[in-house]
Amino acid sequence: KMLRRVLCTVLFMGALPSLAEVSQGHISVVLLGATGDLAKKYLWQGLFQLYMDQVSSGHSFTFHGAALTALEPGQRLMFDVLKNLACPPDESPNRCAVLKDQFLKLSQYHQLKTAENYTVLNREIETLLRQEGLKEAGRIFYFSVPPFAYTEIARHINSSCRPPPGAWLRVVLEKPFGHDLESAQQLAAELTSFFREEEMYRVDHYLGKQAVAHILPFRDQNRQFLDPIWNRHHVERVEIVLKETVDAKGRTSFYEQYGVIRDVLQNHLTEALMFLTMELPANVSKAEEVLQCKLQAFQSLRGLEKNSAVLGQYQAYASQVQEELQKAQDYISTTPTFAGVLIHSDSLRWEGVPFLLTSGKALDERVGYVRVLFKNRAYCTQSETLRDGGHSQCKAKQIIFYIGHGALNTPAVLVSRNLFRPVMPEGSWREAAGPSDLHIFGQPLSDYYVYSPVKERDAYSVLISNIYHGRKDFFITTENLLASWGFWTPLLKSISHQPLRLYPGGTENQHLLDFEMVSGEVAFTLAEPVELLNPSRLMPSDYRSIQSKFRQNPLVSAWSEDLISQLASDIEETASRTVARSGQFHLALSGGSSPVVLFQRLARHHYAFPWKHTHIWLVDERCVPLTDTESNFFSLHSHLLQSVRVPYFNVHPMPVHLNQRLCVEEDGGTELYAKEIMALVANASFDLVLLGVGVDGHTASLFPRSENGLEGAQAVVLTESPVKPHQRMSLSLPLINKARQVFVLVLGKGKHDITTLLSRVGREPRKWPISGVSPSSGQLVWYVDYEALLG
Amino acid sequence: KMLRRVLCTVLFMGALPSLAEVSQGHISVVLLGATGDLAKKYLWQGLFQLYMDQVSSGHSFTFHGAALTALEPGQRLMFDVLKNLACPPDESPNRCAVLKDQFLKLSQYHQLKTAENYTVLNREIETLLRQEGLKEAGRIFYFSVPPFAYTEIARHINSSCRPPPGAWLRVVLEKPFGHDLESAQQLAAELTSFFREEEMYRVDHYLGKQAVAHILPFRDQNRQFLDPIWNRHHVERVEIVLKETVDAKGRTSFYEQYGVIRDVLQNHLTEALMFLTMELPANVSKAEEVLQCKLQAFQSLRGLEKNSAVLGQYQAYASQVQEELQKAQDYISTTPTFAGVLIHSDSLRWEGVPFLLTSGKALDERVGYVRVLFKNRAYCTQSETLRDGGHSQCKAKQIIFYIGHGALNTPAVLVSRNLFRPVMPEGSWREAAGPSDLHIFGQPLSDYYVYSPVKERDAYSVLISNIYHGRKDFFITTENLLASWGFWTPLLKSISHQPLRLYPGGTENQHLLDFEMVSGEVAFTLAEPVELLNPSRLMPSDYRSIQSKFRQNPLVSAWSEDLISQLASDIEETASRTVARSGQFHLALSGGSSPVVLFQRLARHHYAFPWKHTHIWLVDERCVPLTDTESNFFSLHSHLLQSVRVPYFNVHPMPVHLNQRLCVEEDGGTELYAKEIMALVANASFDLVLLGVGVDGHTASLFPRSENGLEGAQAVVLTESPVKPHQRMSLSLPLINKARQVFVLVLGKGKHDITTLLSRVGREPRKWPISGVSPSSGQLVWYVDYEALLG
Repeated sequence: KMLRRVLCTVLFMGALPSLAEVSQGHISVVLLGATGDLAKKYLWQGLFQLYMDQVSSGHSFTFHGAALTALEPGQRLMFDVLKNLACPPDESPNRCAVLKDQFLKLSQYHQLKTAENYTVLNREIETLLRQEGLKEAGRIFYFSVPPFAYTEIARHINSSCRPPPGAWLRVVLEKPFGHDLESAQQLAAELTSFFREEEMYRVDHYLGKQAVAHILPFRDQNRQFLDPIWNRHHVERVEIVLKETVDAKGRTSFYEQYGVIRDVLQNHLTEALMFLTMELPANVSKAEEVLQCKLQAFQSLRGLEKNSAVLGQYQAYASQVQEELQKAQDYISTTPTFAGVLIHSDSLRWEGVPFLLTSGKALDERVGYVRVLFKNRAYCTQSETLRDGGHSQCKAKQIIFYIGHGALNTPAVLVSRNLFRPVMPEGSWREAAGPSDLHIFGQPLSDYYVYSPVKERDAYSVLISNIYHGRKDFFITTENLLASWGFWTPLLKSISHQPLRLYPGGTENQHLLDFEMVSGEVAFTLAEPVELLNPSRLMPSDYRSIQSKFRQNPLVSAWSEDLISQLASDIEETASRTVARSGQFHLALSGGSSPVVLFQRLARHHYAFPWKHTHIWLVDERCVPLTDTESNFFSLHSHLLQSVRVPYFNVHPMPVHLNQRLCVEEDGGTELYAKEIMALVANASFDLVLLGVGVDGHTASLFPRSENGLEGAQAVVLTESPVKPHQRMSLSLPLINKARQVFVLVLGKGKHDITTLLSRVGREPRKWPISGVSPSSGQLVWYVDYEALLG
Repeated sequence: KMLRRVLCTVLFMGALPSLAEVSQGHISVVLLGATGDLAKKYLWQGLFQLYMDQVSSGHSFTFHGAALTALEPGQRLMFDVLKNLACPPDESPNRCAVLKDQFLKLSQYHQLKTAENYTVLNREIETLLRQEGLKEAGRIFYFSVPPFAYTEIARHINSSCRPPPGAWLRVVLEKPFGHDLESAQQLAAELTSFFREEEMYRVDHYLGKQAVAHILPFRDQNRQFLDPIWNRHHVERVEIVLKETVDAKGRTSFYEQYGVIRDVLQNHLTEALMFLTMELPANVSKAEEVLQCKLQAFQSLRGLEKNSAVLGQYQAYASQVQEELQKAQDYISTTPTFAGVLIHSDSLRWEGVPFLLTSGKALDERVGYVRVLFKNRAYCTQSETLRDGGHSQCKAKQIIFYIGHGALNTPAVLVSRNLFRPVMPEGSWREAAGPSDLHIFGQPLSDYYVYSPVKERDAYSVLISNIYHGRKDFFITTENLLASWGFWTPLLKSISHQPLRLYPGGTENQHLLDFEMVSGEVAFTLAEPVELLNPSRLMPSDYRSIQSKFRQNPLVSAWSEDLISQLASDIEETASRTVARSGQFHLALSGGSSPVVLFQRLARHHYAFPWKHTHIWLVDERCVPLTDTESNFFSLHSHLLQSVRVPYFNVHPMPVHLNQRLCVEEDGGTELYAKEIMALVANASFDLVLLGVGVDGHTASLFPRSENGLEGAQAVVLTESPVKPHQRMSLSLPLINKARQVFVLVLGKGKHDITTLLSRVGREPRKWPISGVSPSSGQLVWYVDYEALLG
């Protein structure tokens, strides 16, 4: 009855749908959490907008609000919301009134609490459809409920509310989608047991913001202008920023668990970053292609380290937490409310370009934007007094996706006039003129082409429309979600002990939160104001206090990251000193996993290293081809050599692969390497040898009870490893002990036992080869991290 | 008599010199060209200033003006100049009057024309000294005469006017010091036959400009601030600029021969560049150390190419030349009056930093400056509305040595307040406040620390004082001069056919002379306004019209530079296509000199080249160690491999050095290389082989009548070269002919005969091995430059 009336009304409205259109079928929308905040504020309005837009699409609709509340109070609550629904200003009051009336009639409230409730809902939908003689097109279940309720609801929907074959199911999920990679994986696994991937629509409402949603179409429609400049050769930096003036008051129970990175950076800002950095698919309207390219872009991101971020907390936050969460006065929150993060992509397109993601609460203004700043490659011979409306090549060149608020107070796309006049879709964006005296990012507004949406649309309206259209690229797929958590989780872990800078909030922050990029890291510009310290934490500079002795030799100890950075600096210092003295530096490096972090550190943070005068030797090698990923040299190459400039002649991989075979004694690989060492290294005495230690006490590829290499005249030997690949080539102990300097690096809890043992035993190389390392006239230094040292 | 009077006066003045001081000895200054323009305008005033400064130094002086004019008119002319000499404003009028009177009495005019004249002058000086009982300290001869007169004067001074042993001789020379490297060498050789290096003081008056002269002291005194930032990691660009409003009117007879590069860039701006880029010696007041570091800085400069410069000529220049030099109406001048040049240093400190040298006549303003712009590495969280007096890290960071004129109208040193407060020598520089509304390089003056000289001193006064003090680092040594000409001459030669952009002059130039940097080259920003073409010149894009056939295969021909750039593009295109198809690209490269330019072009201008997927093979090799500068691989490494990122595993030098010996047959180097090719290159068919041709028709290291490699099954062979080093390793002709593509590069007049011959003969590989190159299923393309093709 109800539906028939609707159809009549539609006919009466003049938007005459053909019968074929009508036969598109019926859509049932179930809004779970129908009386909650989000529903009140955005979702019902978005559903009403969907109805207004699609009333003559040929689909018919019913809207089912649902919550735990009993029927009658629930109904009342829900209709209080519905009666406040508004039409957009360009809608005629007449049509609006009619449509709103219809929408109210198509909407009803359900209590959904028990399994039985879901079965009843399902039966009602089926009955209605049968009565009206309508084919079912699909069902949308919108989860506007806390995540702990997800599993239960998902189970009910899956078991009782699936539409019949031929009709689709779309479940819409709101964040948070986990707390880190592990929890996100767990949640994803649960959901996957109830829904197929194509049924799930995870909302990141930033993807519905008009300026963000237009990044890809903009890149697509302006390929002719962007193709030559959308790369590291032309882009100087990218800023992706969401600044808020509000604080976390009233939301601390949520915020204290999440913090700014999980709340904003991991999702909203990361998604914007992906739209900027991803390769453009041939067809940007094909959701699968977009999603594929996005995933690839994730894979190119360089891993974040502790110093990739600066963190702050506004001063009042602690007391707000104490009050709202009833914590003691001495409770210290380590939750950041401000973060600036420096991200690099290692793709050929973006290598070296800094992407700065910044967000915070209690800042000086509310604004969101994505800003691409291009390099200035021009020299303007005429002095700058010309008035040329922004066409001078010496003015800054920028493209800005202005998400909203701020000085412009509207979503917008801005392109510097000295770049190009962009192609914009005529129906939906129009050229806009702002106040003429307005300055945006250091330039008068008149220096830009400025476009704003013809119709400003709320993000949720955009997204609900995209759910209806099945545009999955506006949502976060499981792979996408896990890629993002995979990227952010290591940072979140490593900063959990990081000091937070306290800031007063608002304009009083002054320059307190300004930060700078130095060698791929970031740091606050102003030194040492009050930082909120985690009292249990040893500060990086403390490691010197733990310098002492280990096996009668100097010991440097610290948390592993600080230890690596100290070791890298010490190696650079040794290198510079040695090159100054003798013109070259002979460095022998070990394989294994511990040195990888060191190699990366050397590659990324030591650009004054005298690579040009450094010879690289291998301490040991596995008998596999050098291009095998198991090869020590391969690892050294990919983590260090390919990023620095060591001359080809100075690189000395071990000759494990001669005459198309591996480590065959007759091929004389060990003699060859020994000869090369004698020919190039004075007295066969390396300037620095870097060693590791195995849990069995092996070092280099010298294993306990090895027949070769522990003593004797041979400089280079073939050995047998107890683990695969068994065959190895290694420098011998006597040769290692000729070195001028030996550093031994020991990392991780797994090495605690052997470390403890070594601290007690004497020189017994046949039992523990590492104990035989004692340079005859050189120096030995131990670099052991706290976990290995203290367990 | 005269001198005794002076000494008395000095005593009377109260600046009591002790007898020991007086005994410092006597200095005779001879100004040749004493009545010329430069002497009138600057030199006499500089000598008077010297006298004022040094009157109580213990030295006594006489000043000898000299010219070709006869005694009496010469005297009259000279004293007309002397009577206008002025004291600095801070000198008391009394002391000034006394000193000027003394100076006039100490000055006399001489006609210096014949050998006899010089002998007489010498005798007069000797007599005077004997009469006064003074020891001779030294003689200064200042050449303010045209360069064609240098040799004659130098000969006379050397033979007749040398001071006695124990006293020094200093001859001061004014530019031009030649016209290019060759003429400068010639002039230097002539001068060297008369004077020792330490006797010659070549003037570049820019070295006397206070702001330029302070660059090194500034760097020295601010080492603590500059050490971390004075390098490629922090400096974004450097601009060295001298803009003039005047044109060349009245000076075209000089200017037409020289042009802006020889007039201003080769000397003044280059010297400023050296002060900026050179390594700082431990002691900046030691002239030898400074000169040594400067020479090293010259050696690091990357060679200039045609496209390193943009050139212009103001519109009225042509008619001025026609008029002043009585040229016909259709006379076209190719002399540039404007140049912008992009310079790179390949030192570790400056690699990649653009240095822009710009100068021109008839521009919009008169100003000279050296501007160092630092990279912006900051993100300012607070929006930019704060008034903070320039301390925000987000404002531009600059150090400017303001040479003079322009908006400031005084020499000055400016340092952005967000950088550091510089250390400045208190006596000679003081903090200055300019007009508060003045903007300098985009920022209010209040954003800088501004220092100006306590006493503004004319450049010539500074230099004359430095001649007196023997500070050779303020002058251009022969080595320095030749290094500079060595750097500029190739550009001057390559641009002699370059089109000049015509500009109207003054502020009407608008953006016409703005230029941009693209891949290490520069180009005007605005496209295609009127350029002044050299009608005899083939334009770069013309080469396509000369594409035709050579030996039945495609021929590409052009001037060598355009040919190389086309070849590089073609190789990149082949590489990209091949990698897209098969995932890798096997490129075999020849040795010799022709490919060097190609290697440099590939390294510098092709950053999208798929190096990561490219394998590099050698076509041939000399039997020398790979680290020998004669080695083909060594050349390939230094010009290409060390600048791009080819994975270590993909580089395949020929194994000419096995078992510590070179190309011994038993070592099996040829078999080893052949096996490596078979193992990695599908069907042993290289994707691209680059060959050259010798004047004897050899290619690779396959020489006429070679026993090996011209036919047969061997893929790699040992051969004998008629020239040293005789022993070679080479790919064989049959292997080369298996390639998918072969490019043959032929450059230079020297190859014209063999090119002509080859165009006529058939396939006779035993006579001319190159004639045997004919890929069995691949493509052969000839790249022959006009000189080789047309002679």
